[in-house]
Amino acid sequence: MAKVAPRTLSGFMELLPEEQMKMEKMMALLRRSYSLYGFSPLDTPVIEAAQVLLAKGGGETEKQIYRFQKGDSDLALRFDLTVPLAKYVAGHYAQLSFPFRRYQIGKVYRGERAQRGRFREFYQADIDVIGDGKLDILNEAEIPAIIYDTFSRLGLRRFQIRVNNRKLLNGFYAMNGMSEKAGEIMRLVDKLDKIGPQKVKQLLIEELQMRPYKTENVLDFMAIRGSNQEVIARLENFRGMDETFDQGLEELLAVTRYLQAFGVPEENFAIDLSIARGLDYYTGTVYETTITDHPEIGSVCSGGRYDNLAEYYTDKQLPGVGISIGLTRLFYVLQEQGMLSQELITAPCDALILPMTEQLDFAVSAATVLRQEGVRTQLYGEQKKFKAKMAYADKIGAPFAVLVGEDEIAQGLLTVKDMQSGQQQKLSPREAARFIRRQVQVRNDRPLVLG
Amino acid sequence: MAKVAPRTLSGFMELLPEEQMKMEKMMALLRRSYSLYGFSPLDTPVIEAAQVLLAKGGGETEKQIYRFQKGDSDLALRFDLTVPLAKYVAGHYAQLSFPFRRYQIGKVYRGERAQRGRFREFYQADIDVIGDGKLDILNEAEIPAIIYDTFSRLGLRRFQIRVNNRKLLNGFYAMNGMSEKAGEIMRLVDKLDKIGPQKVKQLLIEELQMRPYKTENVLDFMAIRGSNQEVIARLENFRGMDETFDQGLEELLAVTRYLQAFGVPEENFAIDLSIARGLDYYTGTVYETTITDHPEIGSVCSGGRYDNLAEYYTDKQLPGVGISIGLTRLFYVLQEQGMLSQELITAPCDALILPMTEQLDFAVSAATVLRQEGVRTQLYGEQKKFKAKMAYADKIGAPFAVLVGEDEIAQGLLTVKDMQSGQQQKLSPREAARFIRRQVQVRNDRPLVLG
Repeated sequence: MAKVAPRTLSGFMELLPEEQMKMEKMMALLRRSYSLYGFSPLDTPVIEAAQVLLAKGGGETEKQIYRFQKGDSDLALRFDLTVPLAKYVAGHYAQLSFPFRRYQIGKVYRGERAQRGRFREFYQADIDVIGDGKLDILNEAEIPAIIYDTFSRLGLRRFQIRVNNRKLLNGFYAMNGMSEKAGEIMRLVDKLDKIGPQKVKQLLIEELQMRPYKTENVLDFMAIRGSNQEVIARLENFRGMDETFDQGLEELLAVTRYLQAFGVPEENFAIDLSIARGLDYYTGTVYETTITDHPEIGSVCSGGRYDNLAEYYTDKQLPGVGISIGLTRLFYVLQEQGMLSQELITAPCDALILPMTEQLDFAVSAATVLRQEGVRTQLYGEQKKFKAKMAYADKIGAPFAVLVGEDEIAQGLLTVKDMQSGQQQKLSPREAARFIRRQVQVRNDRPLVLG
Repeated sequence: MAKVAPRTLSGFMELLPEEQMKMEKMMALLRRSYSLYGFSPLDTPVIEAAQVLLAKGGGETEKQIYRFQKGDSDLALRFDLTVPLAKYVAGHYAQLSFPFRRYQIGKVYRGERAQRGRFREFYQADIDVIGDGKLDILNEAEIPAIIYDTFSRLGLRRFQIRVNNRKLLNGFYAMNGMSEKAGEIMRLVDKLDKIGPQKVKQLLIEELQMRPYKTENVLDFMAIRGSNQEVIARLENFRGMDETFDQGLEELLAVTRYLQAFGVPEENFAIDLSIARGLDYYTGTVYETTITDHPEIGSVCSGGRYDNLAEYYTDKQLPGVGISIGLTRLFYVLQEQGMLSQELITAPCDALILPMTEQLDFAVSAATVLRQEGVRTQLYGEQKKFKAKMAYADKIGAPFAVLVGEDEIAQGLLTVKDMQSGQQQKLSPREAARFIRRQVQVRNDRPLVLG
């Protein structure tokens, strides 16, 4: 029979079992962390009516969208989790309680040009808090705490949550008579990290016909650095000149003030006035998160406050705040940088039971005892030589091999072999189960990410 | 602004938060159960090259497939998890260890005619064990144990795993000189449950021109009932007449013999000779699972043994055994039948902290303590009257409300209110955390499914 090559499309991540185990652990940690902050899991369809998904229309994204006909229907695959959230909240408004807090970890699709580290199918892991008409600033203050807690749970220590406020920026541009160009300026200033202040200045002059001294005002403002206290002291100098600015400053003060109560160390948090987040969508606090030793990766967790989630679907005013982790990309980058722990158990089982006789009843009932105690247990049933069985245990990375021969059956005991140390001991099935569970627990408690 | 109606496509399940929590719990239980039997989680793309996905080609399924062009690529959405598994194993053959045991819980797509209870996007939850060249019968014997354990974990008690063997059937047809028509006969016999023996007999005579006494041979065989021992005794009468039959009988004996060691009660298991599973694909043991009180639902967990997983992609002989749960449909049916527990916590949080003062520091640090102890905690930050705050706690179904007023701040205590009983008590944050965790644990340990 002619064979079809079993290829996977480029831009689509498909992991080997060992890597997949790490990815699953990462997703489990995110689910856990988001749950602890009182977010409900949500699941929405991957396919939506194109008319619904593209209600907002246009822009860069539209070209990348997977859109197709099925029968009479014009369909599209979701390209983020925010539009489906807007649709969901508008559609189920009457049945939801506000503030509505949801998390969603799901695949999204963008037909970008395929290149290394860029994915066309990728997981996003989002949280959002949606208010009905209003939403308290406390929610904006809680977000850095959630990011901090989540990244800490993953095992990361050297990362920085960078925060700014769009009102502060808008106010600053207003007081400098640049309101009309504010959007354009922010788009160019966003390139600061990539191309540096000199080139940004040049672009501001060439593209926006700004006067040189005005560009310097902008760049001086963006360059304000120091401890949170120092930055705020500098910002206080602008107080009283513009109402929007003052409002933004108050919000920024509120967010930083709660940091200590939320337990976020100062070294993991910085006010960074150069952050704007491209989208017009954001109206208050904005967030980016960078891995300290790898600034080249860019932000791995971003988001902000918005005033109107679902204006394309409803007249209701639905302000919110949210963040998104590009999970597939983050996983890819951590793997590339060698930051994923090699110490974790990535085998399909904790204990591999190797029967050495034809008589399997004791091996089977031992497997049941191990599973009752929560030990992930594989019963190896193939007729192979001892050496081949041990080679399999080794190859899958099983932490423990459990040998069941005639002696063991006669004594009602299991020979438990630690595959790392090579040490072995005879234990009753119940003892073996508890011993293995403890040992495995220690290894599973180790951090997933190093750095 | 003109609004777009925020509709969801028909045939696509989108749950409200309370129902989604139950679905998540169901998925977590499946992940846990599959893991305990030593299966690795796997994730494959939703989109594949149409040429790869449709390598096997044809049949009923092809019309239902979501297939479309993107640029020059002819793409399709996966319609099951078996074809992607075949592609994966063939493509990564050299890097995998055999037997390769994987589970996958993922969405699949079929553009079926939309009707109540039929879904176009639905989760399947599959396990498969793939051998390299050979695969021991023990794997076939283990499957009913996994089904039993999984359904028991969900809370179901009244269900039956029905098992048959394709070699037994093929051998039976051979000894009756019906080998050529065996496939056709099985297709019609598959309707027994739905239309009864008289109509099946009529179809066998009309469609296949079978002689009446031959149809009676078939229907008598299918009607063999009784305890496993009784059925086997009846089957022993046929021994020695056909080699394939004898081989099938040996396999069936092996599968039933291990039942006790695997701890599967006799009442949850039955040999049922009328089960064939439509597909030609299966070659040995086949499985169906029915909910005793709702036979009309049909099988909720089916599968079997196959000899050649990936013949369209590779020359390697890859025998396997697997089962699949149609998770979205199962969830839908359990919900419709009122079989999902109403006792479970479906709130986004276990504890809702309600600050009663402007001063939030104590409330914030209390939230941190609760989360450290594993209590899912939402901090309510909106400026509302006490009554509105309590109404929110009630509406989201929070098991506990935690009140933080001036007295509490002064004393360093929290007022913990059990929302079911109305009882309240003052506790330190750490005491409150442990108390709530214990109470919540009791409720979370209750079964998800009743029946």
